[in-house]
Amino acid sequence: MILTVTLNAALDITYRVPALTPHASHRVTEVIERPGGKGLNVARVLAALGHDVTVTGFAGGDTGRTLHDRLTREPRVTDALLPVDGATRRTIAVADAATGDTTQLNEPGPSISPAEWSAFQESYEELLRRGAAAVALCGSLPPGVPVGAYAVLVRAARAAGVPVLLDTSGEALRHGLGARPDIIKPNADELAELTGSHEPAQATRDARRRGAHAVVASLGARGLRAVTPEGTWQAVPPARVHGNPTGAGDSAVAGLLSALVEELPWPDRLARAVALSAATVAAPVAGEFVPSTYEDLLARVAVTGEATAA
Amino acid sequence: MILTVTLNAALDITYRVPALTPHASHRVTEVIERPGGKGLNVARVLAALGHDVTVTGFAGGDTGRTLHDRLTREPRVTDALLPVDGATRRTIAVADAATGDTTQLNEPGPSISPAEWSAFQESYEELLRRGAAAVALCGSLPPGVPVGAYAVLVRAARAAGVPVLLDTSGEALRHGLGARPDIIKPNADELAELTGSHEPAQATRDARRRGAHAVVASLGARGLRAVTPEGTWQAVPPARVHGNPTGAGDSAVAGLLSALVEELPWPDRLARAVALSAATVAAPVAGEFVPSTYEDLLARVAVTGEATAA
Repeated sequence: MILTVTLNAALDITYRVPALTPHASHRVTEVIERPGGKGLNVARVLAALGHDVTVTGFAGGDTGRTLHDRLTREPRVTDALLPVDGATRRTIAVADAATGDTTQLNEPGPSISPAEWSAFQESYEELLRRGAAAVALCGSLPPGVPVGAYAVLVRAARAAGVPVLLDTSGEALRHGLGARPDIIKPNADELAELTGSHEPAQATRDARRRGAHAVVASLGARGLRAVTPEGTWQAVPPARVHGNPTGAGDSAVAGLLSALVEELPWPDRLARAVALSAATVAAPVAGEFVPSTYEDLLARVAVTGEATAA
Repeated sequence: MILTVTLNAALDITYRVPALTPHASHRVTEVIERPGGKGLNVARVLAALGHDVTVTGFAGGDTGRTLHDRLTREPRVTDALLPVDGATRRTIAVADAATGDTTQLNEPGPSISPAEWSAFQESYEELLRRGAAAVALCGSLPPGVPVGAYAVLVRAARAAGVPVLLDTSGEALRHGLGARPDIIKPNADELAELTGSHEPAQATRDARRRGAHAVVASLGARGLRAVTPEGTWQAVPPARVHGNPTGAGDSAVAGLLSALVEELPWPDRLARAVALSAATVAAPVAGEFVPSTYEDLLARVAVTGEATAA
């Protein structure tokens, strides 16, 4: 089982409108709802790849109830979200049929009490002990959770001998790094924010020095750049893929984690992550991927680089 | 007890954002949720005026559950919304802190099955028999409800001897008029759509000829114009009120209905409706009114016109 943690889970709602005009009234022509937050997106992709996944984090209120309802319908996904008093946040993506562009409205998360955070840590450690093959810590922290939360969760995973990937940004990433996660997966902006450098090769090496065992930087259309104890690689998709980048990063995380659990070498992990990510961009539905597109791309991803001399 | 019918109830959500920019991502700074749909708004104002109200219509899904939860907290309001399989719609008002303007996103309503519509009619007739002093039929029809629905509901009210006010627009209004409601309350646009005339005096008379016993046209800052069997009047607020017009029409309906039940003459009914409506525009929270503002305005509304010669 792979464990994904989503402390700030969401109900992701997509509204299709003919065209968004500020200060006008709009009839929404289509409403799509699904569980959201990075860790839940990662779990969906892992399940599609054939892995059993347990999702944890927090869920509360009527939106939390909707989340639980939806998760029971997803095959290979076990719902271990803990109840909280506050209501799970909604995110609204207003998709403009005229331009294809999306306007995003994100509610703040529910406020987590110290008792809720403490109950979470207990439950998380129990899930690690119950035989997690790997764990992904994903996304932002809701109000009330201490900024050092990911450091605590990384440490617990390492103590339990479970490989841990951290995918977050800003202060939460900075604090989490100190506990030495196995993998971080910043995008170019997050990397620059962390290291102050906009030069990917330099910034990736620098991020690694700050505590991560391996840094996999996602560079958009230029693919992934990985600096790891085993070597340094760059994986590039075969062609520029057009579409919706929503969820591409989460698919990359799922690619990395599944390949890690399957004990594939780094170049294969990166190829899978890049192909999944590109297949997600190309898919008609945001955050999904078409298996045949993925397999086609996987065969054509170019991985260059070299293993560290033994 | 006054009965209000909201066939297309909603969960009204207001998002405060610093400034709405199409195709950007926004952090919502404040989320306000409350039961919505015209009939529920009318009920809230009636309750604030001291009347017992029963609300009926449909509620379903997790949003419907939220609606029920909220209604139990409202004093003097009895929740008689019927369960349906579909989910109650949400409306999102994105309030721009920079300009004070609002962008509205309205989900379509749930699809109502023939069995659900039939169950509603039975329950509605039972509520009429249980001693409703008046009934308001409010708002749009959800998918699945026949376009002649309001004609059926007006007829049932008249058969039960319960005065009935119809506040809707378009085809639903056109069909409902045929059953001769006691009062309709179109705004200037609805009146023009119904009659083809943009001249209020002409259009109001014309709307009455189409079937309504009394027509109370709401003309925004120019107040209300009423053409009734007892006479013709115009009620005008003392000064132009600045603020948010959301819910002003629903407050006018509550004013008319409460005054009808209290057996006040038409000029007093109109004065109350105009004062409530203006107090709603002036209130800091959309759709609410400040009682002291209402009372102050009530004393200063100018009503002109004359009773029909006996």
